[in-house]
Amino acid sequence: MKRNLILLTDLYELTMANTYFNLGMKDKMAYFDYFFRKIPNQGGYCVFAGIEQLVDIIKNFKFEQDDIDFLESKKIFSKEFLEYLKTFKFTGTIYAFNEGDIVFNNEPLLVVYANLIECQILETILLITLNFQTLIATKASRIVLAAKNRKIVEFGSRRAQSYDASIYGARAAYIAGCYGTSNVLAEKMFGIKSFGTMAHSYIESFENEYDAFLNWAKSNKDNIHLLIDTYDTLKSGMKNIIKLNKEYLIPNNLKLKSVRIDSGDLAYLSQKVRNILNKNKLNDTKIVVSNSLDEYLIKDLVEMQKAKIDIFGVGERLITSKQEPILGGVYKLVAIEDENKNIIPKIKLSENIIKITNPGFKQVYRLYDKKNMAIADLVTLNEEIIDVNKEYRLFDPEYPHKEKIVKNFKIEKMLKPLFENGKLVRVIKNIEYIKNYHQEKLLNFWDEIKRLEMPSKYFVDLSQKLYDLKHKMIKEIKENE
Amino acid sequence: MKRNLILLTDLYELTMANTYFNLGMKDKMAYFDYFFRKIPNQGGYCVFAGIEQLVDIIKNFKFEQDDIDFLESKKIFSKEFLEYLKTFKFTGTIYAFNEGDIVFNNEPLLVVYANLIECQILETILLITLNFQTLIATKASRIVLAAKNRKIVEFGSRRAQSYDASIYGARAAYIAGCYGTSNVLAEKMFGIKSFGTMAHSYIESFENEYDAFLNWAKSNKDNIHLLIDTYDTLKSGMKNIIKLNKEYLIPNNLKLKSVRIDSGDLAYLSQKVRNILNKNKLNDTKIVVSNSLDEYLIKDLVEMQKAKIDIFGVGERLITSKQEPILGGVYKLVAIEDENKNIIPKIKLSENIIKITNPGFKQVYRLYDKKNMAIADLVTLNEEIIDVNKEYRLFDPEYPHKEKIVKNFKIEKMLKPLFENGKLVRVIKNIEYIKNYHQEKLLNFWDEIKRLEMPSKYFVDLSQKLYDLKHKMIKEIKENE
Repeated sequence: MKRNLILLTDLYELTMANTYFNLGMKDKMAYFDYFFRKIPNQGGYCVFAGIEQLVDIIKNFKFEQDDIDFLESKKIFSKEFLEYLKTFKFTGTIYAFNEGDIVFNNEPLLVVYANLIECQILETILLITLNFQTLIATKASRIVLAAKNRKIVEFGSRRAQSYDASIYGARAAYIAGCYGTSNVLAEKMFGIKSFGTMAHSYIESFENEYDAFLNWAKSNKDNIHLLIDTYDTLKSGMKNIIKLNKEYLIPNNLKLKSVRIDSGDLAYLSQKVRNILNKNKLNDTKIVVSNSLDEYLIKDLVEMQKAKIDIFGVGERLITSKQEPILGGVYKLVAIEDENKNIIPKIKLSENIIKITNPGFKQVYRLYDKKNMAIADLVTLNEEIIDVNKEYRLFDPEYPHKEKIVKNFKIEKMLKPLFENGKLVRVIKNIEYIKNYHQEKLLNFWDEIKRLEMPSKYFVDLSQKLYDLKHKMIKEIKENE
Repeated sequence: MKRNLILLTDLYELTMANTYFNLGMKDKMAYFDYFFRKIPNQGGYCVFAGIEQLVDIIKNFKFEQDDIDFLESKKIFSKEFLEYLKTFKFTGTIYAFNEGDIVFNNEPLLVVYANLIECQILETILLITLNFQTLIATKASRIVLAAKNRKIVEFGSRRAQSYDASIYGARAAYIAGCYGTSNVLAEKMFGIKSFGTMAHSYIESFENEYDAFLNWAKSNKDNIHLLIDTYDTLKSGMKNIIKLNKEYLIPNNLKLKSVRIDSGDLAYLSQKVRNILNKNKLNDTKIVVSNSLDEYLIKDLVEMQKAKIDIFGVGERLITSKQEPILGGVYKLVAIEDENKNIIPKIKLSENIIKITNPGFKQVYRLYDKKNMAIADLVTLNEEIIDVNKEYRLFDPEYPHKEKIVKNFKIEKMLKPLFENGKLVRVIKNIEYIKNYHQEKLLNFWDEIKRLEMPSKYFVDLSQKLYDLKHKMIKEIKENE
């Protein structure tokens, strides 16, 4: 499924690149940060995803002749620039968090160090890739936590925002803890197990519901999952299930694996269905439900309503992150290298102080206490060294008087090399590894951070040095106005 | 960009197909309707889009050997069924509205008549294709109408829900009246003109804003569009624009085509900027704005705040239909053919009367008055004939006593052949044609239907015959319970 997506870019990336080239700035090196400013759904954390796809894109980053021909036809690019694009490839360096990491707003999750042209040509596709998968992994994580060990299967393909959203959304959901997907292509591409049984149309294609069940059982002896709400879950569906069990399954030594309810009051129906199943010694038969579910409904069903549900099929509200369908990840210039290879920090002002970028080439450290619980993330300039044998003063960059002295802590360097001079230097792990890695990382965070509503704030602090640099630069710009 | 998406399907489509095959039902013919139940964003209409992509998919509908091998590895499909899939193709008949048509809830927009296996294997990908493009075309139409002849350029790629959403979203937005896109690949694929200039990072890459402007102008003599809000729109940006105009553009006989404002109070800033431009005889320079816009903000800027804006760049709220990111289109069995080729209508009950499907093989007629204004859509059984020379009684299917007698009306048959026995029978028009067709069709509808908020309801009525069939079937099922 290799596709040429090099032109999947905002035009301005190419007009800027053309301009840099024509001005003789093609070798000017820059640093760009990828980060987001706000966690969606009023949540307390995000789940970082999309690195594998970004790596694939970068490795195959190439303008084909027909791309060059097309650009030429726009008559806005210089001949020399188009010639340059023929051998264009990514030769820069990238540092990034790991896929599956728990991440927060206002910390760089990925840093690109490359010439200005490469930095710009990478921007749009990098943003699409990381914004979407991180959005869906984050939403899925909320849903998985709400279900408290019951299984979540991603059922959203038909409502996904086009083809790739169904494919990469299924992937992101799996990384965040979903048990599987309905999407067969996602299984073929990534090895995520796909699940599914029948639609109402199957039941309606037979004379009656019992015939539909019986024919299914005869044709799928090891795969008897039945949809029971086509006519009436209790009056018709369960009546026919019990009849099928007595008249066909027991005599043939077959097992009813699950029943699915897709409408009605899921709490009430699941309790009734569980009772009937158990009375008929079908204690092992699972109950699957679907129908416009999300983390709030699932939490309610599980905690308040004692629903007897084993597996939730979650569709449109997961695959689109319906409540908030955008992760506003941005990609900002933070430094330029001068002729002597000095890093010149850059800052973008905004009327809103929280929107002002953090200048310079930076690193992110995660601080843990002795029990491996995360204390805070600390954004520093890259050259800073954190001495874990000393006390360290953390302070809130919005309210610097709010401070906290930490000691006996451990640190983890979060921005680790991904590409070095154009070469991939990280082993890309398989999806099972990433999923397990994510589950382990979740354990390092207090439940208060992971609450669905009104979570505690996890602190992303700036080092004193970075804070001082930022405020010095703000002051200088204001004075020059 | 041909991709093999045959496995982009919910698993249950394939398990049902396998079961039908194994039960000897592979030639059983069925009718499925595609429709949606609710117009997103409390709007009054939708814009139908995605037919071209659906046609491409159906024409290339084929299981490759590696798809078959993969399915075999799941060990749930019979050997005979997998053999059958090797030569599988779509051989059925499809009726559909035109791309660009104004469409409404609870009317079939597309009808598939094919064997049960083809019907099911088509379901998921058909839903993804039509749901997403119709969603975005509908959202874009609202935004275009709100802008009242000012231009809308789709700027959302970076926040799109993965790659295809940015590509097909740009296409759908263009059909609905957008002027262009930032997405270069969408221009290459569909011929939608792409636009764009520079990011803040470009300005910051120079010593100062004036240098950035001057270098841009030198390198892009015919393409001078400048971003003016990097430091301060009025105090810095416009000061440097006027300086550039006096010192470089006028002496070199160059034109400033546009300035873009991406932050701050767009109404206030655009008025101030317009004044300054005009005082400097830059009356032809356009003002472009961007920054989290949608139809409500644009309406406000245009109508209430007298903003001086020529072009709106609309990003994330368009490309994701942020306020309501899902069109809940469904695909429902409405009839089965028996051995004697009789059409046996099917119905799916629901506790909610509005969710009960309309049974049978149907047609949709659009009724127009003498002035070509649409009166109502009428869903009939396919065999019904509407005599335009007689009076016709329309009635509300929810409140049948609410009726209206129409006379001197014209009708348009909306469900027209798309495929016949597997063969494409409709000329697929280019995107300019579809865009113009859509603009013409919009003129047939009263402004009251097109209001952003609290639009008048356009009636989708059932013929008496269809209404009677539906209620007879509901009664029969209830009696059998």
